[in-house]
Amino acid sequence: MQAGHAIGVDLGGTKILAGVVARDGSVVRRHERPTPQDSQEHVLAELEAAVAELLDDSVEAVGFGAPSPIDQARGVVVRCVSMPLENAPLRDRMHERFGVPVGLDNDANAAAIGEWRAGAGRGEDDVVMLTLGTGVGGGVISGGRPFRGWNGAGAELGHVVIVHEGRPCQGACTGRGHLEAYVSGTAVTEAAREEFGPSADAHRLVRLANEGEAKAEELLAEVARYLGSGIGSFVNVFGPEAVILGGGFGVAAYDYLRGPAEEVTRREALEPMRSTVRFAKAELGTAAGLIGAGFVGFEALDA
Amino acid sequence: MQAGHAIGVDLGGTKILAGVVARDGSVVRRHERPTPQDSQEHVLAELEAAVAELLDDSVEAVGFGAPSPIDQARGVVVRCVSMPLENAPLRDRMHERFGVPVGLDNDANAAAIGEWRAGAGRGEDDVVMLTLGTGVGGGVISGGRPFRGWNGAGAELGHVVIVHEGRPCQGACTGRGHLEAYVSGTAVTEAAREEFGPSADAHRLVRLANEGEAKAEELLAEVARYLGSGIGSFVNVFGPEAVILGGGFGVAAYDYLRGPAEEVTRREALEPMRSTVRFAKAELGTAAGLIGAGFVGFEALDA
Repeated sequence: MQAGHAIGVDLGGTKILAGVVARDGSVVRRHERPTPQDSQEHVLAELEAAVAELLDDSVEAVGFGAPSPIDQARGVVVRCVSMPLENAPLRDRMHERFGVPVGLDNDANAAAIGEWRAGAGRGEDDVVMLTLGTGVGGGVISGGRPFRGWNGAGAELGHVVIVHEGRPCQGACTGRGHLEAYVSGTAVTEAAREEFGPSADAHRLVRLANEGEAKAEELLAEVARYLGSGIGSFVNVFGPEAVILGGGFGVAAYDYLRGPAEEVTRREALEPMRSTVRFAKAELGTAAGLIGAGFVGFEALDA
Repeated sequence: MQAGHAIGVDLGGTKILAGVVARDGSVVRRHERPTPQDSQEHVLAELEAAVAELLDDSVEAVGFGAPSPIDQARGVVVRCVSMPLENAPLRDRMHERFGVPVGLDNDANAAAIGEWRAGAGRGEDDVVMLTLGTGVGGGVISGGRPFRGWNGAGAELGHVVIVHEGRPCQGACTGRGHLEAYVSGTAVTEAAREEFGPSADAHRLVRLANEGEAKAEELLAEVARYLGSGIGSFVNVFGPEAVILGGGFGVAAYDYLRGPAEEVTRREALEPMRSTVRFAKAELGTAAGLIGAGFVGFEALDA
């Protein structure tokens, strides 16, 4: 008899990443395919194909992470902005098609679950994960359970105010002074261009810091202090044992961000968290989402 | 046969408020006594006396709200700063003494539970309550359950950063730019004194506004905008249907705070919350804590 596996599917705006995930979080095999942009039916068909391609007798459950609020009661993906997928009854459809328990979650939650179960948050009951990429996402594990909030999308950690009446936020958000406006890869790219010209971006800034450019290190330290204000708030709200930094920019810049961010966080945090909270770099890279989606599948199986 | 009741006990730094609470949140009878400051044993004896005085055959459970983190697993009040009570196994002691189920909660959580079950948050599954008094406390109901966080004290909503590198926080907190430093009664008293001289305080400011003093209204509007930044963050983190303002200053100044706070909150909030979240004034006044403690008792009974 083969050990039980779950298929985890991380649905992104450009790629569908799918993998066969074991209970220990290891990925037995995986593949990826492009995300269709022409129709909802095409997206759903590709998700089915992604699962079908990996299915074997060892697979006991399927889990999906999607960039959308999730209606957990009905098992519905509410609305993705990065692809044509709206009000999609993914759970029922996939359950009918494959005959195994199906779990759904928001993609940022799935990544946090991946890091919690199989990455930098292993063994903890309370974890805050922040992903610094194009935007700032995140997920929270509270009391040994994923915090899903009222709409299944969890906490919008990138949209807390850290500067009253501060910088306008990104995209469609009308807020001011949100964490995302100071520490996302996009925000850092903007700051890098002001300092180093139009060819600079957040990743080039990290390379410049690696080469010993003092102004680049300074700029990253400033970003890190803003990050510390945001993390300090999360620590006082959720009381995590571990704060995990992930996302493309978060991982690349981790060695520059950690020191100043941790210093500010400890100043802002109440006891006992200020003494006990630990910082960690995400360990699973771009696989966090599909591994977490696998655990969302196991969660549906074990429910 | 009498309808079932719970005794709710709100343990404060100066007073112990106790009452017999019905399932609908009405308080059948109540009394209060001073909080001893001399010894832990004296505090515990007074808590027992408060319960004993109200006990009759209709009482099925007892609940306590205490200004302390709560170790829910062991039923222990971890440490109160406003009275000599530390590492106190209140649940076992009271259960042994009175023979009914006993529940414990943090006092701010208890007040939020009171408003949720029997006050301004009735019928909702997701509620954020903020109490503006000497400090800023609060409680969160998430997905139909009190959010207790890892240490049973819930979220420390007064200690989120709303101004990066802003005003020093109050008391022992080393943080900067925390919500409490801008919108607590203490912070507002300080601002009122700068404007109106050493005899002014937060409540006098509200009276001046009532009398049509434009500068007082302006100052309250400024406080309200800071409050809106904080509430905007909580809305994006917890997605509440209702935000309740309570506490002595919060209730007294509600009519001045609500408009500008709501305007900023809706600017900061993501959809759909920006359209749907509603503001409400706490309805239960100083009884919120003891009513909530009664419901904490019922929760222990029904568990």
